[in-house]
Amino acid sequence: MDNFFMNKALDQALEAYKLKEVPIGAVIVKDGKIVGRGYNRKEISFDTTNHAEIMAIKEASKNLKSWRLNDCTMYVTVEPCPMCAGAIVNSRIKELVIGTMDSKGGACGSLYNIVEDYNLNHIVEVRRGIMKQECSNIMKNFFKKLREGDKL
Amino acid sequence: MDNFFMNKALDQALEAYKLKEVPIGAVIVKDGKIVGRGYNRKEISFDTTNHAEIMAIKEASKNLKSWRLNDCTMYVTVEPCPMCAGAIVNSRIKELVIGTMDSKGGACGSLYNIVEDYNLNHIVEVRRGIMKQECSNIMKNFFKKLREGDKL
Repeated sequence: MDNFFMNKALDQALEAYKLKEVPIGAVIVKDGKIVGRGYNRKEISFDTTNHAEIMAIKEASKNLKSWRLNDCTMYVTVEPCPMCAGAIVNSRIKELVIGTMDSKGGACGSLYNIVEDYNLNHIVEVRRGIMKQECSNIMKNFFKKLREGDKL
Repeated sequence: MDNFFMNKALDQALEAYKLKEVPIGAVIVKDGKIVGRGYNRKEISFDTTNHAEIMAIKEASKNLKSWRLNDCTMYVTVEPCPMCAGAIVNSRIKELVIGTMDSKGGACGSLYNIVEDYNLNHIVEVRRGIMKQECSNIMKNFFKKLREGDKL
């Protein structure tokens, strides 16, 4: 089941890749159904808040007509940054499934661990490394092509 | 000048108060002009990402047609949470002026200090305690009335 939904998150990452955006994707699942989808579109939208996770949270909140996403699981291809980790806590998402970690700026166990901090008002259950290789490969491929000056 | 713009952020907080939202407001200033405004509207919009700071960043990015807010100063009535502190770093805001601190969940010097972390790719210049009393009073008043069951 985890692989099925992480593949859906990877589909979202691919949408970002096609737009020459850093290929990160996310889906939010409730009762076995996808209620929110998102992919990074920071550059094309001129808006740094448009990370995959924020887009998915916005869509899920709209669909469920609630900012509380208590019974939801987010699948995201790359470890969330502080902004997105904070949004995940704020939205009370129950479970977070991460593909590959971001040792430099990740805020779910790498640089910070905002999602499992008992000082905050919500603790998220986290699983890491689901389809790690696939989630990592799409990022590596993107940055390799970017360095090579390819048109992606 | 700081007091002038913090008063504008307080005007935004008052808009939130009127809607029975936690009264936090923010403005973003570039070259002496306000380019983005925001107030917390989490409850009415069913969207936990709609904090004052995120709204202001979105508006400023839209107005300036760039996600990079390098030469901008944000004035915010209350210390930003992890989500908003992360968004401030992501948007490369130059200066952050904070009214009152949030010792429980603030991420700009209290629980975390995301905006002044040399491990991240941007450091924000922070000033704290500008119109602290006014920014604190509107929050205290709000929660007092909430506890009393008033209609605000």
